[in-house]
Amino acid sequence: MKAALGLDFGTESVRALLVDLRGRELASTSAKYRHGQIVATLPGSMRALPPHYALQHPLDWIESAAKATRAALRIAKGAEVLGIGVDFTSCTMLPTKRDGTPLCLLKPFAAEPLAWPKLWKHHGAQAQTERINAVARERGETFLQRYGGIIGLEWFFPKMLETLELAPRAYDAAEVWLEAGDWFVWQLVGGAADALPRSTCQAGYKGMWSATDGYPSEDFLRAVNPKFARVVQDKMPGRLLAPGVSAGGLTAAMVKKFGLREGTPVSAAIIDAHAGVLGAGAAEPGTLVMVMGTSSCHMLNSEVERSVPGVAGVVKDGILPGFFGYETGQAAVGDAFDWLRKLTGQRDFSALGRDAAALPPGAEGVRCVDWFNGCRTPLMDGSLHGAFTGLALHHGPAHLYRALLEASAFGVRWIVELLREGGVPVKAFVATGGLPHHNPLVVQVYADVLGENISVNPNQQGPALGAAILGALAGGAFATPDAAIRAMATPKPGTAPVFKPNRSHRAAYDVLYREYRRLGEFFSAKPNS
Amino acid sequence: MKAALGLDFGTESVRALLVDLRGRELASTSAKYRHGQIVATLPGSMRALPPHYALQHPLDWIESAAKATRAALRIAKGAEVLGIGVDFTSCTMLPTKRDGTPLCLLKPFAAEPLAWPKLWKHHGAQAQTERINAVARERGETFLQRYGGIIGLEWFFPKMLETLELAPRAYDAAEVWLEAGDWFVWQLVGGAADALPRSTCQAGYKGMWSATDGYPSEDFLRAVNPKFARVVQDKMPGRLLAPGVSAGGLTAAMVKKFGLREGTPVSAAIIDAHAGVLGAGAAEPGTLVMVMGTSSCHMLNSEVERSVPGVAGVVKDGILPGFFGYETGQAAVGDAFDWLRKLTGQRDFSALGRDAAALPPGAEGVRCVDWFNGCRTPLMDGSLHGAFTGLALHHGPAHLYRALLEASAFGVRWIVELLREGGVPVKAFVATGGLPHHNPLVVQVYADVLGENISVNPNQQGPALGAAILGALAGGAFATPDAAIRAMATPKPGTAPVFKPNRSHRAAYDVLYREYRRLGEFFSAKPNS
Repeated sequence: MKAALGLDFGTESVRALLVDLRGRELASTSAKYRHGQIVATLPGSMRALPPHYALQHPLDWIESAAKATRAALRIAKGAEVLGIGVDFTSCTMLPTKRDGTPLCLLKPFAAEPLAWPKLWKHHGAQAQTERINAVARERGETFLQRYGGIIGLEWFFPKMLETLELAPRAYDAAEVWLEAGDWFVWQLVGGAADALPRSTCQAGYKGMWSATDGYPSEDFLRAVNPKFARVVQDKMPGRLLAPGVSAGGLTAAMVKKFGLREGTPVSAAIIDAHAGVLGAGAAEPGTLVMVMGTSSCHMLNSEVERSVPGVAGVVKDGILPGFFGYETGQAAVGDAFDWLRKLTGQRDFSALGRDAAALPPGAEGVRCVDWFNGCRTPLMDGSLHGAFTGLALHHGPAHLYRALLEASAFGVRWIVELLREGGVPVKAFVATGGLPHHNPLVVQVYADVLGENISVNPNQQGPALGAAILGALAGGAFATPDAAIRAMATPKPGTAPVFKPNRSHRAAYDVLYREYRRLGEFFSAKPNS
Repeated sequence: MKAALGLDFGTESVRALLVDLRGRELASTSAKYRHGQIVATLPGSMRALPPHYALQHPLDWIESAAKATRAALRIAKGAEVLGIGVDFTSCTMLPTKRDGTPLCLLKPFAAEPLAWPKLWKHHGAQAQTERINAVARERGETFLQRYGGIIGLEWFFPKMLETLELAPRAYDAAEVWLEAGDWFVWQLVGGAADALPRSTCQAGYKGMWSATDGYPSEDFLRAVNPKFARVVQDKMPGRLLAPGVSAGGLTAAMVKKFGLREGTPVSAAIIDAHAGVLGAGAAEPGTLVMVMGTSSCHMLNSEVERSVPGVAGVVKDGILPGFFGYETGQAAVGDAFDWLRKLTGQRDFSALGRDAAALPPGAEGVRCVDWFNGCRTPLMDGSLHGAFTGLALHHGPAHLYRALLEASAFGVRWIVELLREGGVPVKAFVATGGLPHHNPLVVQVYADVLGENISVNPNQQGPALGAAILGALAGGAFATPDAAIRAMATPKPGTAPVFKPNRSHRAAYDVLYREYRRLGEFFSAKPNS
């Protein structure tokens, strides 16, 4: 049976999804990364990492993906894989040598944290981000408009500059800087550094690149730091390819590892959240696709291009050809829920969810600001923090949990209001990603707070299905992305559960939302910095 | 051997301390109240109480005290008890009939929460407190000056008025309103309602009474609520007696219960925290005695009378004859620590304390406002709430715990600064109560934040010893309170551990204290009310 493989790289594990050309699942497996998130100490070291560091081990990606793929092939016996698609967290990035060897695997750099792959949530580049923004504003750089006026702490250039300034020896030794998703595809298809496949999606949303203007100019980069001037020419070789375009065929060296045929086409990578838009079958403009996981990306295709303050990226053809792709996000969603679960000593979410569902809107006085990993949209400030207020001795874990769910929902409401006020229509809401399927309460709270219906895409692996669609496209199974999405990802009628808002909560949530904004204003004011 | 008995009524249990006339412990026992704090449902009822209610069962006091006393007498065989002293939480109060029967024990009122004894921390009288304060300010009542300009939510008149306005049938049936400590002494010595012993300490600090002006005037009370006008004449019979003065002898009916001789003198009651000043041996003016338990009272004897904003009470001879007694307090200390322990799913404080001690000042960014049960001194506002801010995903329970300890210390620093700025010298610091003995970390954090030495009174039962001193006085063993304190409570040289401030933390805590005050200002601003 003809099939496509989607490899969906998350923060803790990779999923391998094998589907047929109507999007029906043949096998779905996943494998954890051996080192997970590296946040305490580097492998083989006892030295504590700074608290805002989050790194990964590059070989984990290859090993886990190969393991998951082989397991999927064992389940889906007889599947004939036409193409491989890859989605990846972003901006997760690393320095390598020109032969693709990650710098951190070379002995002289094994103990240098800033030579390791930086996970999307690594927050070490605060000073660098501030300087990049200050210089860009001062010079009136036009790329700022595409990113809501601000470059994010988690993006590609700040992360490179962090290593340049804090670990110059590692920076000097780095011959290639690239996105982890691009590195993975490069490892699969081989080839010289000058031809390595870079995704236009990652480059457009996280690398300040656009099809018309390219990367930031040498003059701008020199103004940021003279040593940074030629980073694009010197350390960012490769070809820019749109997701769905074949980056090449699987090398002989990878055949045994993955159990796939030599030459199987591999699509250029895509950001995981953006893959979710394809996987959610959202081909229509004006549908906000909420890809909810450890963090959330809320994506929208629109016919209009507007500059909306704090919207992380507007990229032409960034998600689907023919539309302006808007990316917005929340830095801590499932991550924050899980943090609270651990903080309150709960083994799982069963008691928290049951008790929180029984509480009225407003959690009997507890308020939360959900910036436990900074605020992505609209403030684009990774240095901000979360808070619980209104606490009294009669409050328990479920009060805090409900307040956190509500804060997360207020964060989405803020984003939707900004888009609409900026002239970008938002007409429908689809929730996808892992979270909505095992946490219906959060979807209900979102629906109540937004006052909108939210349909949950029945495919539990939206991004992985999106990646598989790209694999099918790279393999030539469909003529256009639109045809592939309609064939493989449109939910069958009646299969997408719809959460309807409880209108009686609307007035309460209007008041609570204003309180959330007032708290947010106070906590982002930074009078002491 | 000649002995004195101190009965120390806490929030969860009562302690019986038998000492000889040099203050040496002969026996120390304690007994939990069968119903503890009644916060969820009334005994025999399934109806949930409002969240800010905290009630108690009056028979628990008698039964637990009798049990603890009999156990103490079994240990200290041959002890000849000269007198009994009683300290009690305050304002814990109840309505009774003229024969002393608590209203809640009568069938028609058993299901009425506001007919039950209200524990000091019961916060049901918010609206009543606001009205009492508004009317007092409007009329320029001079009693306000003795209480820092504001009457507290936890005090006697607001709690009576709450029942009048929310449960008028219970209020009408109540023939006597009195402090729980006074009720207990009355039960021990018997007698008619018109002669029931009321402590000048409780009356002065919680009942807006003074030796010169008496209780608030009928005119004032009428302005608050016409039905409230004659409450003093109609429902507050009794004689006012200073602590240490005998209220009478043990009745025959109580002899068997307690195992003591008929006629044993019983002192008028004292507030638990104030007993702690005696028990800490602090006879010198200018020593701040920090009585730390579920809540904290910080008490000071001074030669000067000053009106300090937010200081809960300045009562002449309120703690020791010849001095002005200042009472200040924090509404949630050990209670808040225990709340956090439970919230974070910890069985005890061992891991929390160890990990928090290893953290630097400032808990790696976590900030706390410790108003989990409102703010007593200086804001006197039980409706305020606590908060944790600066939270990030790398923070764990110990970060919150350290931030809470620091917030508690900042609360004390605020009080000390107010006293000094108001012209009241604060020269030395003594910690007593249960908390300092099993939680040395909190004392060290206090010392660091105050930048002052703190000596921990070696007597682990400061209030109970203070009560025993009053028992000895009532029994005629000493001519003056001063002589009794010096004989029974002055620590032997070298027996009081002293916590010295870590001076290297001083600058950090100065900055953190200003942050605490800034957060406090924001959270007490109430723009939405």
